[in-house]
Amino acid sequence: MRVKHKPWAKEKLAKHPDIFVSEPEKWKGKWRELFQNDHPIHIEIGSGKGQFVSGMAKQNPEINYIGIEVVESVLVSALDKVMDAGVMNAKLLSIDGALLGEYFEPGEIGRLYLNFSDPWPKKRHTKRRLTNPRFLKIYQSLLKNPGEIHFKTDNRGLFEYSLTAFSEFGLLLTYVSLDLHNSNFENNVMTEYEEKFSQKGFPIYRLEAQFDRES
Amino acid sequence: MRVKHKPWAKEKLAKHPDIFVSEPEKWKGKWRELFQNDHPIHIEIGSGKGQFVSGMAKQNPEINYIGIEVVESVLVSALDKVMDAGVMNAKLLSIDGALLGEYFEPGEIGRLYLNFSDPWPKKRHTKRRLTNPRFLKIYQSLLKNPGEIHFKTDNRGLFEYSLTAFSEFGLLLTYVSLDLHNSNFENNVMTEYEEKFSQKGFPIYRLEAQFDRES
Repeated sequence: MRVKHKPWAKEKLAKHPDIFVSEPEKWKGKWRELFQNDHPIHIEIGSGKGQFVSGMAKQNPEINYIGIEVVESVLVSALDKVMDAGVMNAKLLSIDGALLGEYFEPGEIGRLYLNFSDPWPKKRHTKRRLTNPRFLKIYQSLLKNPGEIHFKTDNRGLFEYSLTAFSEFGLLLTYVSLDLHNSNFENNVMTEYEEKFSQKGFPIYRLEAQFDRES
Repeated sequence: MRVKHKPWAKEKLAKHPDIFVSEPEKWKGKWRELFQNDHPIHIEIGSGKGQFVSGMAKQNPEINYIGIEVVESVLVSALDKVMDAGVMNAKLLSIDGALLGEYFEPGEIGRLYLNFSDPWPKKRHTKRRLTNPRFLKIYQSLLKNPGEIHFKTDNRGLFEYSLTAFSEFGLLLTYVSLDLHNSNFENNVMTEYEEKFSQKGFPIYRLEAQFDRES
């Protein structure tokens, strides 16, 4: 995504502490207190402009959503989306996915969403892919059993890589669609990117995987 | 595949005992004797008209290939293909894949190929799919460690099903391509069906999986 620099972003985010959590490290192990209920917490890594996280929050009021996005100039658009949706069950954080462990206790996260993550197609950048074992290890340590990852992408190479990486890691694949928009999957909430991309007629790939094979 | 009945098929097959093995049960545990070497044995289940098995035999003289195809009127075309290829390392059997265990000893098979298997799209026919756990169990019992399955299909539903079925069974996915003909996979030998189908521009899906996760 091309990002327009918005010098006022930080200030605007700070004006909405009910949605934007400026000091997430303070809530480590206490996110239920922040949401004031014990609903499951689902996290989207790389929320972009927030259409997914706000749409999911509206669709599923019994789930608490946290969208994380490192770029504040983008996150400020997600703030607007969450406000427009008028939901109380979505928060936004400006943190790096690789550092999730600094903000969440083991077992505190119910599910992770990875949507249209950067494919990092070059071999030497494999480790930066969010479905790399380096990241899977972090997710596994923070997810509550059976820890679920829901992943969608238009990038064939990233999806192929992820299928083998998940298998190698011992994750159980519970759902695979190789053409989400022509499948029987219901209640799909599209990201901004997905909406644009799928109009070109290319397939969207989607999978669900679980860490705990016994559950 | 639409099959033209060929009443003379049985007779023609019987005339070529060097390629068509009419009493395969006699060779159970002794296939190496029949091939007169101890090269690995790779089996294609559902060989159809034999383009794949004959092409692979030509490409890889150090491997012994066995094509199995239950329909004799089809197998007779495979016989022609193997003869045309002039190879000594390909045999054909007219048996049912579900009964592999009657013809091979555990550990006697090095690799299995499933190419464009019948997708059996109806839910009530799930058990007939050649990637169903019922079949995986048979394959596992007959394959030598690390037992490999190489599978390709144009059928999205069958491929999606197979990815989750393989994962559930504990198979390790070592390779996945969601568009074989636009991938960097080399030395692909096409089946007759693949040749026709891929000209329409639809993707061919392919995977490799291993039973023994430790190998």
